[in-house]
Amino acid sequence: MRILVLGGDGYLGWPTALHLSDRGHQVGIADSFVRRQYDHELGVRSLVPIEPLAVRVRVWQELTGQRIDTFVGDLTDAQFTTELLHAFRPEAIVHFAEQRSAPYSMIDRRHAVYTQSNNIVGTLNLLYAIAETDPDIHLVKLGTMGEYGTPNIDIEEGWLTVQHNGRSDRVLYPKRPGSFYHLSKVHDSHNIEFACRVWGLRATDLNQGVVYGQQTAQTARDDRLATRFDYDAVFGTVLNRFVILAALGRPLTVYGDGGQTRGLIDIRDTAECIRLAAEHPPARGEFRVFNQMTESMSVLDIAKLVADLHPNVVEVEHLDNPRVEAESHYYKVTHTGLVDLGLRPHLLSDTLLTSLYAIADRYRDRADLTALRPNVNWRRPVSSGLGREETTGAGTDDRTAGGG
Amino acid sequence: MRILVLGGDGYLGWPTALHLSDRGHQVGIADSFVRRQYDHELGVRSLVPIEPLAVRVRVWQELTGQRIDTFVGDLTDAQFTTELLHAFRPEAIVHFAEQRSAPYSMIDRRHAVYTQSNNIVGTLNLLYAIAETDPDIHLVKLGTMGEYGTPNIDIEEGWLTVQHNGRSDRVLYPKRPGSFYHLSKVHDSHNIEFACRVWGLRATDLNQGVVYGQQTAQTARDDRLATRFDYDAVFGTVLNRFVILAALGRPLTVYGDGGQTRGLIDIRDTAECIRLAAEHPPARGEFRVFNQMTESMSVLDIAKLVADLHPNVVEVEHLDNPRVEAESHYYKVTHTGLVDLGLRPHLLSDTLLTSLYAIADRYRDRADLTALRPNVNWRRPVSSGLGREETTGAGTDDRTAGGG
Repeated sequence: MRILVLGGDGYLGWPTALHLSDRGHQVGIADSFVRRQYDHELGVRSLVPIEPLAVRVRVWQELTGQRIDTFVGDLTDAQFTTELLHAFRPEAIVHFAEQRSAPYSMIDRRHAVYTQSNNIVGTLNLLYAIAETDPDIHLVKLGTMGEYGTPNIDIEEGWLTVQHNGRSDRVLYPKRPGSFYHLSKVHDSHNIEFACRVWGLRATDLNQGVVYGQQTAQTARDDRLATRFDYDAVFGTVLNRFVILAALGRPLTVYGDGGQTRGLIDIRDTAECIRLAAEHPPARGEFRVFNQMTESMSVLDIAKLVADLHPNVVEVEHLDNPRVEAESHYYKVTHTGLVDLGLRPHLLSDTLLTSLYAIADRYRDRADLTALRPNVNWRRPVSSGLGREETTGAGTDDRTAGGG
Repeated sequence: MRILVLGGDGYLGWPTALHLSDRGHQVGIADSFVRRQYDHELGVRSLVPIEPLAVRVRVWQELTGQRIDTFVGDLTDAQFTTELLHAFRPEAIVHFAEQRSAPYSMIDRRHAVYTQSNNIVGTLNLLYAIAETDPDIHLVKLGTMGEYGTPNIDIEEGWLTVQHNGRSDRVLYPKRPGSFYHLSKVHDSHNIEFACRVWGLRATDLNQGVVYGQQTAQTARDDRLATRFDYDAVFGTVLNRFVILAALGRPLTVYGDGGQTRGLIDIRDTAECIRLAAEHPPARGEFRVFNQMTESMSVLDIAKLVADLHPNVVEVEHLDNPRVEAESHYYKVTHTGLVDLGLRPHLLSDTLLTSLYAIADRYRDRADLTALRPNVNWRRPVSSGLGREETTGAGTDDRTAGGG
């Protein structure tokens, strides 16, 4: 199958591209490398060194004989997007190519506007390019469990059958997201559902949980195939951050009570979920939604799990929560769609944590303690000025106390 | 009360500004005049001649002694937006300043992207400017009944209490809109609800029905105070269009069966609803939603009502529906919030239609028959090229048959 991975140079795009290539698919990667630019902007870097995309695909071809085509450009450039589809002629498109950090979107007005424009316009251009090039193309779009927020009712997979005043309808699951980034994904979902309904496109919207882990069977074959490992307060995800803190012997910093429950997923399962979704497309006109997560856990429980691996060394510390979110809430999620397609989840285990700890330990000298501290505050709208310098640059004092 | 009307040079913004000024409020108007530019782009114009904003406010001051401050700029310009709020220091902001035509958003990719970027970025800039300048400012935001689509359950005012698997929550009413324009309003609503929840702003989101009428007590005082009267297929609303067709002795063109039911509202009630909303602000942190409509009617029934005023002269003609929408559906809408605040609706009557007909008749020589034909097709995504010339310019053959 010809599969195009948009954002295929990123944390998950890269291992997903390799997993698909390993399974015999003809893979193309498109990327603008803006994710690497964010590192320079924020003064942080991946804990694990990563090679340029050109090196990555060369090494993969040397090891496996599999070629991966690469395309450099930005989806907000409509001409690039259309030409990309004409050139590669994909049967499925896996769309990771969005700004994906909630704190980044909350730095200031400029970052909020950038996140929403970039994500919405890129996806709109893509929908038009698909409709024009080949409406049969299956769009596999990455969303996030954070779109739902924390409703007091069970979270279903994208759709909800509602009974109201004696009548019934199947409606898009009502969402109440917690950042301008999460909102951009909700906007995308609405736009994509419309394109399916009106133009007969087919799409799978994946509401992904918090991803942890850094290695897959493919990336582990050569150091030069490694994917990113982000531990900073803007792009790092919670479990990966805790492992670094533990490796450095620092307290695990939990926002508030830590009662926030999150859906989690192993990086290997992410790649596999996307393979399953791509190989089993929905019918034309269908907007299909899966909740791409395998288990739920509170942030405090995640911290305790990591801390228990290092008894007497690692403590859990509570910080003022920079986000506005419920710290104690109901959370029950349906996530059977991908299991029905054949997913056999890797659940969080000591084995995984130990290997992740080994990676963190190996590269501990690259870790920057200041990057671990939360430095974006949800309660403080920054309308003007160089928000980047004021709120996220290294070497300023404008930080929430505590941290790494 | 100091009230800033964004988009105050438009069809509804202008009469609303006058109504508020007439009731003793200190009114400011901001506008970019992009609405007047759309006329040139599409090769159409208001049936009723309108004066430049500078003339309008001068005439109003001459007649009433009331001054209206004017500011020229675009909300997508963040610096303008922030400076505007610093300069005028409003207590309430009425936000009409968005691209408001569904067909315009569906012309092609470029118009879809323009509509969503323009509307979303403008509103984001405004939210940040309010949060920075004075979070007490009450945002009164114009949305549309079209955001809801046509669900098979009763439409409530913005929020819905859902029972699911034995639990209950109050959620944002799930919406399923029918164009990229309508989608932009849904995105706005999600962003505004977030700003209320996280920053403690206060907002009233008005889901407005299809507006009809052209005169208010204030605009009727002098021809130079007239507001726009759009009858073209892109910016004209259904009832106003039918009145023009009737005045010209043309068949009333109904899309498909005409069973599509719409919420309606008289232009005088629009202005009054906004006054009531502005004078009764919600609490800080509240995202309040009203359905701003006074009655529901099917498109066919609206056509028959107009045709019955001109028996033996006017016929109803059915055209292929260029939109993708249900032509027969359930439609029951709660719209008590504004009545509870004191609205006494003008319902559609022969009197109103007769006076509207007199206006249409007076300016019939300005009417352009070609502008009445639907020329944007929902089913045909146009990804590239100069969509404007291909699908909306005067003098091309690319039109749905029938029409005016």
